[in-house]
Amino acid sequence: MAVTVVGLDGDDTLWHNETRFQLTQAELRELLQRHVPEADVERHLAGVEMKNLAIYGYGVKAFTLSMIETAVELTQGKIPASDIEVILGWGKRMLMEPTELLPGVEVALRELSLRYDLLLITKGDLFDQESKLARSGLAGLFLGVEILSEKNVNSYRGVLKRRGIKPEEFVMVGNSLRSDILPAIELGARAVHIPYEVTWHHEEVPEESLPREGWQRIDSIAELSRVLAKL
Amino acid sequence: MAVTVVGLDGDDTLWHNETRFQLTQAELRELLQRHVPEADVERHLAGVEMKNLAIYGYGVKAFTLSMIETAVELTQGKIPASDIEVILGWGKRMLMEPTELLPGVEVALRELSLRYDLLLITKGDLFDQESKLARSGLAGLFLGVEILSEKNVNSYRGVLKRRGIKPEEFVMVGNSLRSDILPAIELGARAVHIPYEVTWHHEEVPEESLPREGWQRIDSIAELSRVLAKL
Repeated sequence: MAVTVVGLDGDDTLWHNETRFQLTQAELRELLQRHVPEADVERHLAGVEMKNLAIYGYGVKAFTLSMIETAVELTQGKIPASDIEVILGWGKRMLMEPTELLPGVEVALRELSLRYDLLLITKGDLFDQESKLARSGLAGLFLGVEILSEKNVNSYRGVLKRRGIKPEEFVMVGNSLRSDILPAIELGARAVHIPYEVTWHHEEVPEESLPREGWQRIDSIAELSRVLAKL
Repeated sequence: MAVTVVGLDGDDTLWHNETRFQLTQAELRELLQRHVPEADVERHLAGVEMKNLAIYGYGVKAFTLSMIETAVELTQGKIPASDIEVILGWGKRMLMEPTELLPGVEVALRELSLRYDLLLITKGDLFDQESKLARSGLAGLFLGVEILSEKNVNSYRGVLKRRGIKPEEFVMVGNSLRSDILPAIELGARAVHIPYEVTWHHEEVPEESLPREGWQRIDSIAELSRVLAKL
């Protein structure tokens, strides 16, 4: 069946995201190592984030709260409030900075939008994602926007059902094997993987756990149109 | 035209919300007045929240970050990290506590769901709202759930359009004149106001600014079924 609807992930597929988290994380490491030089900041923060995921969900606000918790814990309560203020400022900066599109995204989406219905399917914080999309200048190219609290086979099924889309006519495109590729294939849809320069540890899955069929990998969104035309 | 679809707000319409924020706020006042006895904590926090609304949006995570900012500012950076940890704990408690339904909600919704399509239309943090709904035990009674980053005439119009609902057949029910009643009437739908015991200052609108027609007020959700039957 020919493809009629293309779902696109946002973070690290259309615009930079994880690199920004990593930059802020590096700043946190530098800040905290002034108080506790030997601390493994990244590791502790990753643990706090995972522990908080079921309470906070994804997004910059959750990340900011986890950074503050990490700062208090690692310094054993010795972090001065002025440093907490600095961390709050990082969170706000992340929420306000311009949406930086990945190379080729705008041209590719303009072309694809002439031939397919495009859906933005992203997860995370509702307010933050809507704001990023507004700042991206791409909103007009999407037929619809779905912001999910978690991307799994049930939440994708819900999207397709609500919109009356058959899995056979749907292709999901994204950078995460775990959130974009696996659930789409499980649903009977197809998927195209476009790796990003870095992957958040939470999104990593072993390559061997993936089915061999139903998906393919490309290096850049510039190749997407050609690949979709062959499906 | 007869009513076929009833939209229901969640926070302070189906379950307690604002009273919980106010309880936590009272705890913050007590905590901060140990450091700065003369501080007007409520007033400062309200100012910080309003300033941050465009960056954080609504919800408990935003509230927690604004509490921390207030604590640092009001104590001029003298708040110890152990107190920051206490504030983080309050935020988590709010996110995890059971959803406490308002009196009569469950019976009313069960009855209404036999006669109307029910939509939960709520604003705030996606993850938090989904989690509250899941903990409420009411999820099965709703045909659909819409979590909006802001409730205004455009966002309501989007919901009705996506779902193919005519404004004339739609009634919105909620505790907020600003977020539930005014935009629904502006859209050409009808509305039923059920006041909650307290109103968040941000949601207050002067009664005189409301149109005289198109809405009515009841004291309890137990009266809703009777009122809808007469529309």
